[in-house]
Amino acid sequence: MKKIISSLAFIALTFTMNAQESDSIVISKIYSEILMNAKAYEWLRSLSFDVGHRLSGSPEAEKAVLFTEQMFKDAGADSVWLQKVMVPHWVRGEKEMAKIIDSKNNAQEIPVLALGRSVPTPKEGITAPVIEVFDFDELKKLGTENIKGKIVFFNHPFNESFVNTFAAYSEAGKYRWAAPSEAARYGAVATICRSMTNVQDDYPHTGAMGYNDSLPKIPCAAISTNGANLLSRILKADSKTQFFLRMNCQTLDSAISYNVIAEIRGTEFPEEYISIGGHLDSWDVGHGAHDDGAGVVQGIEILRTFKALNIKPRRTIRAVGWMNEENGVMGGKVYAEEALRKNESHLVAIESDAGGFTPYGFGLDMDESKRNIIKAWAPLFRPYKIWNWDYQHGGTDIGPLQKHLNTPLIGLIVDSQRYFDYHHAASDTFDKVNKRELHLGAAAMAAMVYLLSQHGL
Amino acid sequence: MKKIISSLAFIALTFTMNAQESDSIVISKIYSEILMNAKAYEWLRSLSFDVGHRLSGSPEAEKAVLFTEQMFKDAGADSVWLQKVMVPHWVRGEKEMAKIIDSKNNAQEIPVLALGRSVPTPKEGITAPVIEVFDFDELKKLGTENIKGKIVFFNHPFNESFVNTFAAYSEAGKYRWAAPSEAARYGAVATICRSMTNVQDDYPHTGAMGYNDSLPKIPCAAISTNGANLLSRILKADSKTQFFLRMNCQTLDSAISYNVIAEIRGTEFPEEYISIGGHLDSWDVGHGAHDDGAGVVQGIEILRTFKALNIKPRRTIRAVGWMNEENGVMGGKVYAEEALRKNESHLVAIESDAGGFTPYGFGLDMDESKRNIIKAWAPLFRPYKIWNWDYQHGGTDIGPLQKHLNTPLIGLIVDSQRYFDYHHAASDTFDKVNKRELHLGAAAMAAMVYLLSQHGL
Repeated sequence: MKKIISSLAFIALTFTMNAQESDSIVISKIYSEILMNAKAYEWLRSLSFDVGHRLSGSPEAEKAVLFTEQMFKDAGADSVWLQKVMVPHWVRGEKEMAKIIDSKNNAQEIPVLALGRSVPTPKEGITAPVIEVFDFDELKKLGTENIKGKIVFFNHPFNESFVNTFAAYSEAGKYRWAAPSEAARYGAVATICRSMTNVQDDYPHTGAMGYNDSLPKIPCAAISTNGANLLSRILKADSKTQFFLRMNCQTLDSAISYNVIAEIRGTEFPEEYISIGGHLDSWDVGHGAHDDGAGVVQGIEILRTFKALNIKPRRTIRAVGWMNEENGVMGGKVYAEEALRKNESHLVAIESDAGGFTPYGFGLDMDESKRNIIKAWAPLFRPYKIWNWDYQHGGTDIGPLQKHLNTPLIGLIVDSQRYFDYHHAASDTFDKVNKRELHLGAAAMAAMVYLLSQHGL
Repeated sequence: MKKIISSLAFIALTFTMNAQESDSIVISKIYSEILMNAKAYEWLRSLSFDVGHRLSGSPEAEKAVLFTEQMFKDAGADSVWLQKVMVPHWVRGEKEMAKIIDSKNNAQEIPVLALGRSVPTPKEGITAPVIEVFDFDELKKLGTENIKGKIVFFNHPFNESFVNTFAAYSEAGKYRWAAPSEAARYGAVATICRSMTNVQDDYPHTGAMGYNDSLPKIPCAAISTNGANLLSRILKADSKTQFFLRMNCQTLDSAISYNVIAEIRGTEFPEEYISIGGHLDSWDVGHGAHDDGAGVVQGIEILRTFKALNIKPRRTIRAVGWMNEENGVMGGKVYAEEALRKNESHLVAIESDAGGFTPYGFGLDMDESKRNIIKAWAPLFRPYKIWNWDYQHGGTDIGPLQKHLNTPLIGLIVDSQRYFDYHHAASDTFDKVNKRELHLGAAAMAAMVYLLSQHGL
């Protein structure tokens, strides 16, 4: 009996090794194809310059949908279609204006961007004393007595000591998202926040915020790190400094938009889906090149590569450009709800939404047994410098799949050092993307998709 | 007996764990100090803009020596001194000129840079038929019959399929270094080579070449990848195309220069040296920011950090800005020769010369037993995303230490994707360096230096 078990174990081992050997050959071909012939970088150039930024509900987002549909066709997908999504439609309106006004009435204009979802100021703007706070504890201590009638300036810097910049974003992000309502609790008339970035420059970084419906909704904006440093210095010297803010952003009626979806049908298990991609919408500044044009073109590239190499996946690969990640995640929700309604079997979903930088790992948001199946493939990825399997983050757009169908989620993990230099700012432009770094991300995901499509999960 | 051994093993394990725990705390402090307060980036800015590029023997190299001496003093080194080095003194002369001239005598100028050490053309330049070859095999097959009297165009592209771009450089590099003499063997009058880079742009990338003294010395230059693609296209359409090359570079008498050296003396083993740093010279274009201003300021930063944290190393740390890595390695040779003459004990040497990019490993060029000592520290580095210990490359400047004293060598391994975009080209400027990436390299080396200074090797 023992001998039989050993033999079986030997056979199993041999099979596994041969499978891995053959997998390693295919993965090598995938990497070569993408590093030598990928079109993702040129697609991203077009998306950046021919479409530009593309906030949900905007004409540019509409153009991006059609543009992406065409890219999928060019990539040779078996089928391409649009999935209707109703999206929030917030518009920035005229260019905002912000000024620091000292007690001698000297005014200095600084760059500013309204936060997504913000209500406008009155047409003539707001001028009010400004008070700087570091965090919510300080805000609470100051209380209504010190806050009422003022503009609260959340000057919470990125903690540069975190090696992973997403940790700094997690920590500081609440002073963008939740700060307006927290300040309104004590009677603030508006809030401004220091931009969520490690760099010191003149770009304000926008992003979504969320109001607490039980509190007054006050206008909120981001100022650049240089602007924040300047304001802080001026306030220290002159506590009577006032701030002027004028914004006429508004939320219009929800708009019709689309997820763009393309498939290569599986040969053996066509009803098992592997969803991949990124989000098609972006903030309404820059090109949305890293966030998240990169993820979209990487998804398209994976389909192109499978076709170019004539790899016929056993399971169906669906590349998706999800709409509305930035301010509502309606695309991700609709995608998952339709999957639930149709009782689709979603094997796994993979998202790239951390920029087109050099990849070094995969986040595995799934149960332990499935995680171990994927981790067993680690040796196949090591020659490509993919080594980290410790994170458990998948992605925002694929989150609803997990919620509704318990789908295992995978997030592409990339070098995070430069991401927040450009994130949600006018500086997130095509020239910030390195071709090889972008393509390596596509290759790592294509290899993962290949293994999942062959071996299941 | 077994029990005793177990107990001893347990004690040893406990000791190791406590040592690692305390090491991990110091390493955490080193990373925080550098990510929050490093001066390396600002030092590099000054080196880039106040000194600029600095080829051995040039006035800028002389300025860089004094400038670096001052940076070491500002960093708080215990002592700083200059070590005299005689360096080759090659000068580019007037701006080179290159033209593609088709059979109808239409001339098109393209950007060009003489290769370092090249002899000049005659004053009026050379005009000759040009022949494209892919590699030395093709050159040999063409032979004297087809080569004599011609300019040979080595159009050997970087192999983009290599994940590590240094592998592509290794493969293509011989068509810069050895091509002129190989072509002269068959009677060529000059050579031009395609630049050693993955990107398609208009920057020629220079670099050193070496003549075979038994063959005629012919002029040699690099043209940009765009230029190479253009020339190749024109040649395919019109095989009678000629090439014009004019350069008046020359090798002058050797010049006096210096390695710049700074120390923090060890408290317990001051006679055991750990040498760290990069090379102070650069090619005579751009800022030499990644190659290798980055390595120099990282070395200075490590001394600053030890002083700022009041870490008193048990062994002596010597940071060095080596002179003349690019075209002679005279600084590295003199440094090692003096160490040999003085019978110094060099524990280990660490070089950073792969650009100021995100680090992910250390190359360990030493015997297996020492390599295993260092590899046992891997868990201490993993939180900082330093995971790769497979390479066995140290560095060019520290190579002579190994040759003369059998010193173990360590090379900082960084993400290589962007390095050859700028390498030896006018595009290697300060703006291509990311502050956090540069500082992470300094932090990884500082952590390694700390462990070596405490535990030896």
